[in-house]
Amino acid sequence: MLTIAVDAMGGDFGPAPIVEGTLHALKEREFKALLVGNVSVLKPLIPSEYLDRVSFIESTDVLDMHEAATNALKRKETSIYKAVDLVKDNVADAVVSMGHSGATMSLATLRIGRLKGVLRPAIATIMPTAVNGKVSLVLDVGANVDCKAEHLAQFAVMGEAYVKDILKVAHPKVGLLSNGEEESKGNEITKEAFLLLKQLKSFVGNVEGNNIFDGSVDVIVCDGFVGNILLKTSEGVADSITKIIKQNVRRSPLAIAGAVLMRKVFTVLKKQVDYAEYGGAPLIGINGCAIIGHGKSNAKAVKNAIFQAINFSSSNINTDIENKLAQLEL
Amino acid sequence: MLTIAVDAMGGDFGPAPIVEGTLHALKEREFKALLVGNVSVLKPLIPSEYLDRVSFIESTDVLDMHEAATNALKRKETSIYKAVDLVKDNVADAVVSMGHSGATMSLATLRIGRLKGVLRPAIATIMPTAVNGKVSLVLDVGANVDCKAEHLAQFAVMGEAYVKDILKVAHPKVGLLSNGEEESKGNEITKEAFLLLKQLKSFVGNVEGNNIFDGSVDVIVCDGFVGNILLKTSEGVADSITKIIKQNVRRSPLAIAGAVLMRKVFTVLKKQVDYAEYGGAPLIGINGCAIIGHGKSNAKAVKNAIFQAINFSSSNINTDIENKLAQLEL
Repeated sequence: MLTIAVDAMGGDFGPAPIVEGTLHALKEREFKALLVGNVSVLKPLIPSEYLDRVSFIESTDVLDMHEAATNALKRKETSIYKAVDLVKDNVADAVVSMGHSGATMSLATLRIGRLKGVLRPAIATIMPTAVNGKVSLVLDVGANVDCKAEHLAQFAVMGEAYVKDILKVAHPKVGLLSNGEEESKGNEITKEAFLLLKQLKSFVGNVEGNNIFDGSVDVIVCDGFVGNILLKTSEGVADSITKIIKQNVRRSPLAIAGAVLMRKVFTVLKKQVDYAEYGGAPLIGINGCAIIGHGKSNAKAVKNAIFQAINFSSSNINTDIENKLAQLEL
Repeated sequence: MLTIAVDAMGGDFGPAPIVEGTLHALKEREFKALLVGNVSVLKPLIPSEYLDRVSFIESTDVLDMHEAATNALKRKETSIYKAVDLVKDNVADAVVSMGHSGATMSLATLRIGRLKGVLRPAIATIMPTAVNGKVSLVLDVGANVDCKAEHLAQFAVMGEAYVKDILKVAHPKVGLLSNGEEESKGNEITKEAFLLLKQLKSFVGNVEGNNIFDGSVDVIVCDGFVGNILLKTSEGVADSITKIIKQNVRRSPLAIAGAVLMRKVFTVLKKQVDYAEYGGAPLIGINGCAIIGHGKSNAKAVKNAIFQAINFSSSNINTDIENKLAQLEL
């Protein structure tokens, strides 16, 4: 049975949604949860029927969301430090945290270590597309702000492995995010990466921002600076559209009636674009498994992040990445 | 009276929407139009009452949208080459083209020349926000793929001048697009640019992708690679949301009725996010005025692009940019 370490103190809302999400996950899947945090707070939240599959690890410190990630390595009593070390010490198979994402990233990379051949682990995020049931994977979305061409090429290999092994896409298509589809497009680094990526059969060439959402590719490769900006831009567009619709519906009784009749459509839309459906963002390239959840995660997002950790840990992704990277000429 | 040179042959749909848009513009504003293209095609499209304010310049060649921008300089008989040269020769005050944007950009920069002190002209685009009546200006969105910190700093000055002089925002706020709001965030180049931008009173620091649409800043500065990706990403998100709504409405008669009742709301939304409302993208930093329209521009977009050219040319923006750049220490 897999063992998942859960940082029960991280996140914007404290232990409540994390514990609730963990319980939902335990109900649906077979695994053991190691809850790391203030045991006297956590224990009373777990109904007795779950206690055979839940253990507690005491931690007296919490890393605040606004602290510098560099503090994380010194603060050995924080819940995130202890949760990560459970994977390092082979006590747990994976760690899930809704806390400080930069800290989780550095701790997982430095304490658990990288896979053989990996220059830099990357954070990947699953994005919805307009094609029903189809998602795309964008990486890196924040771990690596300044990248070289060989980093981007490795991200492609890691993203392809994730989509194949976890999302079960048989023949993934990998695109390099650029300012145009032609090979001649790109900045200096993506042009160099393009040449390296020609080694991959899955590489379909440059793609543009809109291709993230149209289902034309499975993996979109970019550096963490661009990845973060495109994530926030996407959220911004979706939020603005929602706001404009709400503002204008409020002004007209007819439109209010229309919105009521369309409620089911909006529910489907919300579900399709809701990050909680996808769980968290895997840190790919470490010698283990770390899933980085949104600070604002509700119980459903926590449950899905744990499911991601289970799927990741029960797959061959890490071996596949090492094998593929060994074949990649940089 | 201002004279606006219009590349009547550029764009995806040929002369029809361009001529129609020009006529709409002539109806609403006082200016002279110089239509550049195949005169025997263009002349019959102009009703006689407009002929006193429309002149024709014969051009026998059209630069195809798919040709390399580098060809533009050699092809001296193209409509875009001739239209740009009308500004260079002081025959026209501004040039408007819906044709090859890369070609317009290179021709305008090289034939008309840069303003004193400008290292690189930038293409700016107006973005809608969720705040009614408020827009934001993003630059660069494609002219300069690889930028240095001093280029970004100059873009800030040029964007601020545009927002002040053309959009009439008294005290614009300028943000540097980054992967977080803290000063410590950014890639190597934006961190360097941050230090230069501290010289500007209007500079509010780093902003994130969502701030483009929330009305919190007036000018968002980025390099042309990131700018292009964020434009395409925004289009992609908006298109996907529209598609998902349409797909799901079609499945339910109730939802169809709801959509009919909400029609006015969707019309307002469409208007608010429709690029045609904003016209084209000004190329800022040249010693004149060039407005680069979308290849798919309809007559309304052409009309608004011409209005932009009129507003730009009747303002002091170019003098203001030269004065401000002279004060900027790089």
